Amino acid sequence: MSLIVQKFGGSSVANAESIKRVAKRIVEARKAGNEVVVAVSAMGDTTDELLDLAHEVAPIPAPREMDMLLSAGERISMALLAMAIESLGHDARSFTGSQAGMITDATHGSARIVDVTPVRLREALDEGAIVIVAGFQGFNRDTKDITTLGRGGSDTTAVALAAALNADVCEIYTDVDGIFTSDPRLVPRARKIDRITSEEMLELAANGAKVLYIRAVEYARRHGVTLHVRSSFNNNEGTIVYNPTETEPNGPAVVPGSSVTPSGSEGLVEEPMIAGVATDLSEAKITVVGVPDIPGKAAQIFTVVAKTGANIDMIVQNVSAASTGLTDISFTLPKTEGQLVLTALRAEQEDSGFKALQYDDQIGKLALVGAGMRTNAGVSAKLFTALYEAGINIEMISTSEIRISVVTRADTINDALRVVHTAFGLDADVEAVVHAGTGR
Amino acid sequence: MSLIVQKFGGSSVANAESIKRVAKRIVEARKAGNEVVVAVSAMGDTTDELLDLAHEVAPIPAPREMDMLLSAGERISMALLAMAIESLGHDARSFTGSQAGMITDATHGSARIVDVTPVRLREALDEGAIVIVAGFQGFNRDTKDITTLGRGGSDTTAVALAAALNADVCEIYTDVDGIFTSDPRLVPRARKIDRITSEEMLELAANGAKVLYIRAVEYARRHGVTLHVRSSFNNNEGTIVYNPTETEPNGPAVVPGSSVTPSGSEGLVEEPMIAGVATDLSEAKITVVGVPDIPGKAAQIFTVVAKTGANIDMIVQNVSAASTGLTDISFTLPKTEGQLVLTALRAEQEDSGFKALQYDDQIGKLALVGAGMRTNAGVSAKLFTALYEAGINIEMISTSEIRISVVTRADTINDALRVVHTAFGLDADVEAVVHAGTGR
Repeated sequence: MSLIVQKFGGSSVANAESIKRVAKRIVEARKAGNEVVVAVSAMGDTTDELLDLAHEVAPIPAPREMDMLLSAGERISMALLAMAIESLGHDARSFTGSQAGMITDATHGSARIVDVTPVRLREALDEGAIVIVAGFQGFNRDTKDITTLGRGGSDTTAVALAAALNADVCEIYTDVDGIFTSDPRLVPRARKIDRITSEEMLELAANGAKVLYIRAVEYARRHGVTLHVRSSFNNNEGTIVYNPTETEPNGPAVVPGSSVTPSGSEGLVEEPMIAGVATDLSEAKITVVGVPDIPGKAAQIFTVVAKTGANIDMIVQNVSAASTGLTDISFTLPKTEGQLVLTALRAEQEDSGFKALQYDDQIGKLALVGAGMRTNAGVSAKLFTALYEAGINIEMISTSEIRISVVTRADTINDALRVVHTAFGLDADVEAVVHAGTGR
Repeated sequence: MSLIVQKFGGSSVANAESIKRVAKRIVEARKAGNEVVVAVSAMGDTTDELLDLAHEVAPIPAPREMDMLLSAGERISMALLAMAIESLGHDARSFTGSQAGMITDATHGSARIVDVTPVRLREALDEGAIVIVAGFQGFNRDTKDITTLGRGGSDTTAVALAAALNADVCEIYTDVDGIFTSDPRLVPRARKIDRITSEEMLELAANGAKVLYIRAVEYARRHGVTLHVRSSFNNNEGTIVYNPTETEPNGPAVVPGSSVTPSGSEGLVEEPMIAGVATDLSEAKITVVGVPDIPGKAAQIFTVVAKTGANIDMIVQNVSAASTGLTDISFTLPKTEGQLVLTALRAEQEDSGFKALQYDDQIGKLALVGAGMRTNAGVSAKLFTALYEAGINIEMISTSEIRISVVTRADTINDALRVVHTAFGLDADVEAVVHAGTGR
């Protein structure tokens, strides 16, 4: 008997009809002879409605109480889902984060899982029940308070349960058919990826792919959990996210014709050279102009930035002009943190000795990800050529072992995405079907 | 320092504005030097909305999951209330039923409290915090499952907390100014009662007064908790519900002019003769016609009724006609249970030997309640005279030591109420102000 963990996001349980459909799907998995554990998010817009209420009663809601409030959302969806399953004639039991043994630190709003003790879940499974667990929430042993895991928390709940219960697979149900070579809303000919390594998935998620949250992928990678990202609207196979250092998971075999055959690859490719292309319009660029090119200045500047808690992404330092002894340092960061960091840097301007600050929130970032680029020369050249031929100017470049990122003007990013997608042979023969939706 | 328990119902926390107003009120009690514990219901229509959802996903929702679902309601209201208090600069902490140590049996949907262990509440109070507790909910130690207390559960939560924490008073905030001599919506000159014994309150509640639930009054009486029923819309003193066998509580003194001086009372009255008049249109009458007047027949019939679980109220058996040796037995019960009991009785007709069943759902019940009637003759006579003079026919009569109930046609019950209210000198000089609202 296999143990399957399934995660359903808010858009999959948005109303009574959706809940009944999801219940049928869960029962099918049980009838197929599997033990089934389900992590579920709050229904549709519940979280946003609760957040609105909180801000109506308090300008800065107390974090402990915010977690208490938000945790009501999954309590509703999980109880309804369990009822719907029971009405189909199957035993089902819902459990809150604390009942499920989801133990976290005490950081309200973005708690980290420190232990998972699914004793009650194991008991319920042994008694033949389908187990429904509230996603997104946990509790702290010391304060005995309820905590929430922050954005993408339900994905993380599912992966953590899969690891703790030694599940065979963790199925992440979503409103798209799986992971695509690019966002199908931007690139209609984006192709569904059948298999992708967790490392590549991590780079895609970190660079703007919204289907999976970085944190859940990281957790899955660290604990050897195989993910299956698939649609809750059909029964198609989705995308298997696996850890290639393990034994190959019992996922669906790769359909031969569907593997990527990039132009420029020679002979037998062990894995696709490029897994996908992601874009991100949520970042801004700060340039610190005229920094004295002497040791310690960059460190001084980034210490100031670090103290703000901002998440900086790409950093580029140009060579200094010999005549002036000054250099420019640019970095990207979420637009939401822009003003905070500018203020902190201005306060240090005199001490740091730089000339000026430039702020640019009209940038777009494109990231090309693929484990295959480790062993394939010419990826950068092909990328830059494709952009050049489309008349798109590159403003910043940053690379990792399996990723190349470039910054362009925001209004050229969608053109950039399409030409790169085509240049690397990722286009599918048919256009993808897109559903709208959100999740947490 | 006094310890006050306050209970706010759903209509008092129906939206963000109401929650902020209630928060201010709680803070005032804290600023006045009291320790404050608050039991709160779910916001306005939340419970009904959750019930609707449950019935959309499952024809007969599983009771365990229904409790899990409904308990989300107070989780939302209590967290919002705690946030609102914190934003006024006071420490506040919300606790679920299980965190508050509200231990119940395992009867989902109508659990009974078996123990209250408010360890965390006492700790929070000792640290100077205002404590907010989810009304209506508890948990069972054996199953470790969440339970709910059923209708009026939040009142019961408040009273149970007051008893366990040895509170000085338990304030029940509602949408009316207190307990009235009758329902102000039906009798505009109904007068607010300043003080009433728990015994009288129990009879009023059992006979249709909606402000307090029987169960909470019973609990208060058994544990010597003094209740103060008052409006959440103003600062007026409400009604003190006290247990006269205790030392008199430190409630407001009775304003001399406000005590009832019924016509026909002689000299010094120790307590008002009549506390109030309640009416109830929710019952129906079943008459078992032609029961053989031999020992054991009534017992046989009521054994059948008891097995249905119906709550029967008044029972009247007429003397048998000597010529036939047959008698009629009538009883009242909630209309909602009428068909169930009729079906059960029909199945027993042959065995019991009765002739026929009559069902009448067009009845109204009026109950006159007052501890003073114990020592005052003539109450029945005055009641029957008042009804006779108004041309209202009495169909059934039932009495207890401090209550007389009569059944009339439903369409005459409001007239009956007004003439009786006037006859016993209960009318006030001014009309009461009525707010709309519901609670749980």
